[in-house]
Amino acid sequence: MLDQFQHVFRSHLTPLSFIKRSAFVYPNKTAIVHGDKRYTYREFGERVNRLASALKARGFKKGDRCAVLLPNIPPMLDAHFGVMLAGGLIVPINIRLAPAEVEYILNHSGASFLICDTEFAKVVEPIRKNLQTVKHFIDVNDEPGHGSLGGTDYEAFLQEGSPDPVEWCIEDELEEVSINYTSGPTGRPKGVVFCHRGAYLNAINEVLETHQHPESVYMWTLPMFHCNGWCFTWGVTALGATHVCLRRFDPEAVWPLIKKEGVTHFNGAPVVLIALLNASNRPKKVEGPLTITTAGAPPSPTLIENVQAMGAEIIHVYGLTETYGPTTICASTPDT
Amino acid sequence: MLDQFQHVFRSHLTPLSFIKRSAFVYPNKTAIVHGDKRYTYREFGERVNRLASALKARGFKKGDRCAVLLPNIPPMLDAHFGVMLAGGLIVPINIRLAPAEVEYILNHSGASFLICDTEFAKVVEPIRKNLQTVKHFIDVNDEPGHGSLGGTDYEAFLQEGSPDPVEWCIEDELEEVSINYTSGPTGRPKGVVFCHRGAYLNAINEVLETHQHPESVYMWTLPMFHCNGWCFTWGVTALGATHVCLRRFDPEAVWPLIKKEGVTHFNGAPVVLIALLNASNRPKKVEGPLTITTAGAPPSPTLIENVQAMGAEIIHVYGLTETYGPTTICASTPDT
Repeated sequence: MLDQFQHVFRSHLTPLSFIKRSAFVYPNKTAIVHGDKRYTYREFGERVNRLASALKARGFKKGDRCAVLLPNIPPMLDAHFGVMLAGGLIVPINIRLAPAEVEYILNHSGASFLICDTEFAKVVEPIRKNLQTVKHFIDVNDEPGHGSLGGTDYEAFLQEGSPDPVEWCIEDELEEVSINYTSGPTGRPKGVVFCHRGAYLNAINEVLETHQHPESVYMWTLPMFHCNGWCFTWGVTALGATHVCLRRFDPEAVWPLIKKEGVTHFNGAPVVLIALLNASNRPKKVEGPLTITTAGAPPSPTLIENVQAMGAEIIHVYGLTETYGPTTICASTPDT
Repeated sequence: MLDQFQHVFRSHLTPLSFIKRSAFVYPNKTAIVHGDKRYTYREFGERVNRLASALKARGFKKGDRCAVLLPNIPPMLDAHFGVMLAGGLIVPINIRLAPAEVEYILNHSGASFLICDTEFAKVVEPIRKNLQTVKHFIDVNDEPGHGSLGGTDYEAFLQEGSPDPVEWCIEDELEEVSINYTSGPTGRPKGVVFCHRGAYLNAINEVLETHQHPESVYMWTLPMFHCNGWCFTWGVTALGATHVCLRRFDPEAVWPLIKKEGVTHFNGAPVVLIALLNASNRPKKVEGPLTITTAGAPPSPTLIENVQAMGAEIIHVYGLTETYGPTTICASTPDT
C-alpha cells in the first residue's frame, strides 16, 4: 500500500492543517483575545507564516529547536504553529522553573532560538553565559516594567518574515514537532517528543471529548507549557473556536473575563477550580453553558458537586506528558 | 521513522477501536434502538464478535468481500464492524437497485457472502443463477411476510460464532474495509474503496462537525448504504452515542420517534427534510435540541428558514462517495 500513488489519497496528519483551514474558512472570526487585543483567524494565520519565515530567514532548519519561555499570551499560540511550520520543534519551558533547570533544558534540547517574555529575563540572565546552543534571543514585550535580554523584539522579528503561506516540509507524519520536558521523581527533566500525527489525533480527540465546537470560547487557565496546553493550543484552532489568553491566573479576574468574553470552556487542575469557587466575586450560577475539564490531581466529590451546583459541566480526564496530556476520561455511565 | 519500534508509540487508525472502546466504556448504555428492541454496547460488541467469528468459521479470509442488502436495521450496524473485524470488506448495496444492477455489483465485487433482508429476496431470486462468487446466503428476518433466499437465518448465523473478542488482523491502516458502488453519468457502477484510516478520520470529523457527543441520540433517516451512512455508522459508535434504527422512512412515523427516543441528531437530503416539514403531525417547535445535517442536493433558503423556525439547527455539508461522504461544510461565519 505504501506506494508511489499514496499521495493522491493520503495526506499527512498535522496540526498545520488546523491553522491553514481556520484561516481560510474563518478569516474574520476572532481567533485570539488578549485583554483588549483581538486577532482574527486571518491575522493569526499571517502571524504564524511570519514567525515561520522569520525563523527560516535566520537559518532555522528542519529539525531545529525553538524554546519558548512564555505565559499564556498570543506569541505562545503563534509559536505552536510557526515553529512546526518552519520544520522545527517547539520546546515550551515551564515559567516557574529555576534558572539552573532552564539552563539544563535549553542546553539539553539544543535550542538555537529562545523566545522569552521579558518577565522571565531575570531567570535567563544569570545562566546566559552557560548556554551552549542558543544563538538568537527574541524578547516578547507583553507587559511593561520588566528587564530584557536585549534580543530582537518579537513583533519586530515577525516583521522580518512574510505573511505569505510557508510551504510545509513534512515528509513523514511521525516527524517531531515538540519537546516537553517533564520531571520524574528521579534525576534530570526528560524530554517527551510529540510528532505531527500524535498532536493531530490528540488535539481532535480533546475537543471532541470536551464537547467543543466552532462557537466555543476557550479560556487559557491551563498553562500552554504543560503538554502544549494538553494539545488544546492545536485543538481549539482546529475548530476555529476562540482562544482567550490569560497572562496570569487571578481568580477574581477570571469571573469577569468569563462573563465579558462569553467563555464556554476552560481546563484546570482541581486547585485552580477551588480557587475559582472561593473567589469573592464568583456567581452563584453560571450564566451560559460552561464546561470545565480537570486533571492533574483527582477532584474531590465535594469539588465536583460544587461545580455542578453552579450549573457548570465538569469533565475529569487523566494523562501525562508522555501521552500528549489527557488520554483517558471519566466517561459518564449513568446505567452502570 | 518507520522502524521496528513504531508499534510502541503508534497504533493503526481503524473504526474497530470505536466498538472495542464503547463496549468497554459503556457496556450498559443503549447502543442500538430498533422499535422495541434494545442492544447495549456490550451486546453490540458481542454481536460484532459473533458475526466476525461466524464469517471466519465459514472460511471468510482477509480481503474477502461480504455484500449486504439491508435497510437501516441492527444487522447493518453489526456488519459495519463485523466484516472489517474478520479482515474483509463490506459491500453495501442500495436496496432500491434493480436485479440486474445488484447482479453486476455482486459479481464485480467478488462477494462470497450476501447478507440480505428477506424483503429483498425478490430482487436477488431472479438473478441468483447468474451469481458467480456468492457462496453463502444469510437471510435477515426482520419483518414478517416476505420471501426468503433459503439461506441461514442471520440470528442463527451469529450463533455459529462466539461473543469473545476476535483478534484484529490489520497490518497497515491503509488496508481496505469497504466498497461502495456509485453510478456516474456513464457506464456501470464504480466501486469506491475505503480504508481503515480514512474511515476512522472521516467518522471522527463527521461527529465533531455535527456537534455530537456521547449523549447524542442519532436517528437513521439516512441510508447506511450511502457511503456507509456518511461514516456515521462508525462515528456514532465512536462516541458511545445511541443509534436509532429506521427500517423505512415514513415522515408521520418519524416525529413520534424523535419524541419517544429523544433524538438529537439526524441526517437527510433536502427532500427528506421537506417531507418531514410537511408531515401532518410535525410539531411547531422541536422539544429538545435537534441538529439536522443535510446534503445530497442544495437546501433552499426557504427550507433552511423553516427548519430554523422550528428551533432546530441545520448544517449543510457536501461530499461524494469518493470522499467517504461529506467532506466539506458550510461553516457558520457570522462576520463575513
